[in-house]
Amino acid sequence: MTASPSHLSRRRLLGAGAAAGAALGAALGAAGLAAPAVRAQVPRAWKLVTSWPAGAPGPGTTAARLAERITRGSGGRLTVEVFGAGELVPAFEVFDAVASGTAELGHTASLFWAGKMAIAPVFTAAPFGLMPEAHNAWIYYGGGQELWDELYGRFGVKPYLAGNSGFQMGGWYRRRIDGLEDVKGLKIRMPGLGGEILRRLGAAPLSLPPGEIFTALQTGVIDAAEFLGPWSDVALGLDRAAPYYYWPGFHEPNGSAEALVNRAALEALPDDLRSLVEIACEAENNRGLAEAEWFNAQALQRLEAGGTELLQFPADLLQAARRESEDVLDRVADGDPLFGRILESWRAAREASIAWGRVSRHALLGAQLAS
Amino acid sequence: MTASPSHLSRRRLLGAGAAAGAALGAALGAAGLAAPAVRAQVPRAWKLVTSWPAGAPGPGTTAARLAERITRGSGGRLTVEVFGAGELVPAFEVFDAVASGTAELGHTASLFWAGKMAIAPVFTAAPFGLMPEAHNAWIYYGGGQELWDELYGRFGVKPYLAGNSGFQMGGWYRRRIDGLEDVKGLKIRMPGLGGEILRRLGAAPLSLPPGEIFTALQTGVIDAAEFLGPWSDVALGLDRAAPYYYWPGFHEPNGSAEALVNRAALEALPDDLRSLVEIACEAENNRGLAEAEWFNAQALQRLEAGGTELLQFPADLLQAARRESEDVLDRVADGDPLFGRILESWRAAREASIAWGRVSRHALLGAQLAS
Repeated sequence: MTASPSHLSRRRLLGAGAAAGAALGAALGAAGLAAPAVRAQVPRAWKLVTSWPAGAPGPGTTAARLAERITRGSGGRLTVEVFGAGELVPAFEVFDAVASGTAELGHTASLFWAGKMAIAPVFTAAPFGLMPEAHNAWIYYGGGQELWDELYGRFGVKPYLAGNSGFQMGGWYRRRIDGLEDVKGLKIRMPGLGGEILRRLGAAPLSLPPGEIFTALQTGVIDAAEFLGPWSDVALGLDRAAPYYYWPGFHEPNGSAEALVNRAALEALPDDLRSLVEIACEAENNRGLAEAEWFNAQALQRLEAGGTELLQFPADLLQAARRESEDVLDRVADGDPLFGRILESWRAAREASIAWGRVSRHALLGAQLAS
Repeated sequence: MTASPSHLSRRRLLGAGAAAGAALGAALGAAGLAAPAVRAQVPRAWKLVTSWPAGAPGPGTTAARLAERITRGSGGRLTVEVFGAGELVPAFEVFDAVASGTAELGHTASLFWAGKMAIAPVFTAAPFGLMPEAHNAWIYYGGGQELWDELYGRFGVKPYLAGNSGFQMGGWYRRRIDGLEDVKGLKIRMPGLGGEILRRLGAAPLSLPPGEIFTALQTGVIDAAEFLGPWSDVALGLDRAAPYYYWPGFHEPNGSAEALVNRAALEALPDDLRSLVEIACEAENNRGLAEAEWFNAQALQRLEAGGTELLQFPADLLQAARRESEDVLDRVADGDPLFGRILESWRAAREASIAWGRVSRHALLGAQLAS
């Protein structure tokens, strides 16, 4: 880390704060009180850089809420200012900005760091992988956090779960997919591991920025496009660009967002503020998923009422995609023992969650849908 | 609220704290700093009464973590002491204790207050109802919190979601249930709305304290017993008391825990501590569910490996139970317009969540189980 002007001014504040703390200690002592809050009197200002446009529904509102909760919960002793993508650093430089200390805090998603660490995407989502509740269980109780800490710790970054865009849909298609053979040659906007799976099945996947998807799909430059869930897809207008909406979004059945904290900045915090940062991230992990669940369900109802044709992917396509997904995951875990340990831990968590899901969510939804 | 000794001593502390705050303000002013933390210098001590034995796995650990997070996150400015069931007030007097101000905080579940407000159980779980992620969505975004506030507000109590024991199982049976007719005369430990449904189907449901379930089941005094999920059921030894473990737990597909706050105590907090209480509850809502998901999935794997026979309830039983459940819910909403509004809002949320669940969780679990 470089000794930036903000670090220097913080050091000056620390000196002044110590004097104020001593005065408070004397005042509290005179009043016959313990002085539990003395050690945390120094106002601090953190920068929060994000990979989202400022205020974007979902991840953008999550980042804003996280900043507001830390600022408010600390009584202004730790103020957090949010910078949208490109305002301080570009969307895909958030990790490096936090690692270097340019910003103390980042709000983003691990899948953007696949070029730096090929296994990173599984901390957001992976094809046929953990659903939100199972991903949280793995991170907090199944050893996931420790592995994530080890992975990002190589760069001096501490990650926390801090939001979730939920389950995705399979995307919007201009023509029907009645079987695996219909995927051949399909020009589809689908980045990441999902795109790699479809490529192996014969499609021609490509990546497009969100702002270009609508026009490309509507004009037929591409045949299909996946983005996120119904809430965000409708916000992009995709329901007006193609008639068929496929499910399930097997490529990303989860959407964990991450808060990245510069480790040195975190360790410099007094214990109460460090604890506040942690619980604010965790509260947002809860809130973000609730928000996505609600608005996705509402948007889906409106789409169905409006005549959008909802279609399930054909069984042979799902089976072939499932097979390819395991090989794709083996490949991203190659060449680094830590990557292999992460994948092994994640797969064990997935196996347990599927067995539990069979006798709980899957069975009840089946009973609800049957009546 | 009565002016208890603790209220008097708190008022004394407030007076002394104001003097200390003024001294701090002067000290900070001299150092040329803003003084954002001045207004929150008064140490406060809250009592947290719970409906669980101290430290009980699941809800007990949730209550302990909630107290620790508020205490630590406030730097000791708001310390929370936990009292297990019976230590300060009995398990089922937690609501009244918070309403009266005997304790500032409670950790419990709404289903215990059915005698006071018949609709209350739906804020924990209801038969064939919202699953955890959908319940959270309804509370935070679907108007659930406002309705809950209105219901408990009649008693001066503010509720927050603060933990979740997750999806339940259908219970342990000494004999197989091959169809609806096998339920006739069944002596089963199942309290609440689930018990009422089984009573209508011909069973003889009864309520037993957790500590008495094992012996009653093992000795054949009862034919079957439901408690919670695999984690808690195994802790009670139920896997050694009966051979058949039925699923799904249609009677309670969720297990929201609630933090109750005395409204006057909450409003007396400075803004930063009020915010801290709120986000600590929400963080615990996230953590509690993750804990339950993980340990339920792990316990289920061990049970299957150990030879426990897992059986799905027969279709005719599930269909009949589903029909009765709607009538049971109509009955509990009777006679109070607020109860009716709550049920209507809850049902609309459920309808949307089932449609969304069909194309997301249900479909992916189906694909995972097929391969």
